[in-house]
Amino acid sequence: MRNLLMTISYDGTAYFGFQTQPGGNTVQDRLEDAIRQLTGEEVKIHGSGRTDAGVHARRQTFHFVTSSQIPVERWRHALNGRLPSDIRITDVVEVPLEFHSRRSAKRKTYRYSINGNRVFDVFNYPYQLHHPGALNIEAMHEGLAHLIGTHDYTSFASRHSTKQSHVRTIYEAWIEVEKGTGAGSHEQGIIHIYLTGNGFLQHMVRIIVGTLLQVGEGKRRPDDMKTILEAKDRSKAGPTAESKGLMLWEVEYADLSIS
Amino acid sequence: MRNLLMTISYDGTAYFGFQTQPGGNTVQDRLEDAIRQLTGEEVKIHGSGRTDAGVHARRQTFHFVTSSQIPVERWRHALNGRLPSDIRITDVVEVPLEFHSRRSAKRKTYRYSINGNRVFDVFNYPYQLHHPGALNIEAMHEGLAHLIGTHDYTSFASRHSTKQSHVRTIYEAWIEVEKGTGAGSHEQGIIHIYLTGNGFLQHMVRIIVGTLLQVGEGKRRPDDMKTILEAKDRSKAGPTAESKGLMLWEVEYADLSIS
Repeated sequence: MRNLLMTISYDGTAYFGFQTQPGGNTVQDRLEDAIRQLTGEEVKIHGSGRTDAGVHARRQTFHFVTSSQIPVERWRHALNGRLPSDIRITDVVEVPLEFHSRRSAKRKTYRYSINGNRVFDVFNYPYQLHHPGALNIEAMHEGLAHLIGTHDYTSFASRHSTKQSHVRTIYEAWIEVEKGTGAGSHEQGIIHIYLTGNGFLQHMVRIIVGTLLQVGEGKRRPDDMKTILEAKDRSKAGPTAESKGLMLWEVEYADLSIS
Repeated sequence: MRNLLMTISYDGTAYFGFQTQPGGNTVQDRLEDAIRQLTGEEVKIHGSGRTDAGVHARRQTFHFVTSSQIPVERWRHALNGRLPSDIRITDVVEVPLEFHSRRSAKRKTYRYSINGNRVFDVFNYPYQLHHPGALNIEAMHEGLAHLIGTHDYTSFASRHSTKQSHVRTIYEAWIEVEKGTGAGSHEQGIIHIYLTGNGFLQHMVRIIVGTLLQVGEGKRRPDDMKTILEAKDRSKAGPTAESKGLMLWEVEYADLSIS
């Protein structure tokens, strides 16, 4: 028996998220189908996290145990030939049997992308929220800083969260603005919001972004982020931003040179 | 009557090219529909060029004459609201009545993009040819240089070309390699081939790229590009590269600050 850890990239537009669910076409279903076609095994894969419907991944990971004798270096090509073109395996490594893609992960990074230009970019339409209205990036930066650290993020979690504890740690959070990609002058550019933490609750990044956009629009002050966090009440935060702007950027492990 | 020049961006995946043709869903059809919905006018628009089925445009232009009184600054937003999300108008200017989007154009630039990494990029799958095999970029550069200047490009034109003359001028041609976007190490990166000229024949850029790929693969020498050009014989050149890697990058005019 071998435990294989795989890194994948996918365009989530067509999927009901990563994880298998009743009646939904998910990324996990497509991966398990491909493994079954290749090895004849009925395996259950374990993802490093769930993603919501329509959310994308640049580098997500999953692991599964197999009795197949296929050499490690053959899996990527063999599975990619059995996967749809919006899912690609990019790396495969063998890991110890006790390794778990989610429990062994040290850091996860998500990126949320906002097109702030007047006209959206047709080539990135499925990957960017379009927000042509003026945003105060400085204020958003300031608001975001209040979320760094170890906190109870109940205010920024879905009411449907089933987790026992809503305490998580955000190690880093930053904003990058890509200019010069818009159609005309005086454009806001593309605003990327990055969040790195030890784990994220359901809808957490999207609710943070939805609230931060209100700070950028001047509807809330940067300090409100702190007040909202302390309230531990979902109703104090802003709306859940559209899923299409969100991308699981990276999953990092301590002892492996795999990310 | 006013003559309006518009710049558009489109993802050509779903279209049978720019120009209206029997039985095909084209970009021109969608634009004329949107103008009809907005103004009630049955206009015929004139593109700065045709693009083949599946080819994209970052900044294409077209013009048309209208008797509508809608102010110039209103058109973009009004038409975008009536267009599918894979076509966007980015700029609108009024031009003299004698101005013609194609005949008045001074320079056109096309870009062809090749993903040279082992695993293709799911987010750019519709916009890049996947070529994981090793390419000698230096040799491709050298081969490309032979095409610069004023030449009869019959060898690099579709046999179905209906143009009287196949003489065109390529002003500039260059290759840019974007590294570090691949999944693993020792990746080739994304190879962008740019061609700027006064006009291009049917399939010209795609046949140039198809031939240049053979130079990159070592199947032809860089000097062969010169021999092929001089032969004025389509059968001497390589295959027509897939349409999805091609993008009309820019159309430039002499007297307008519109590009």
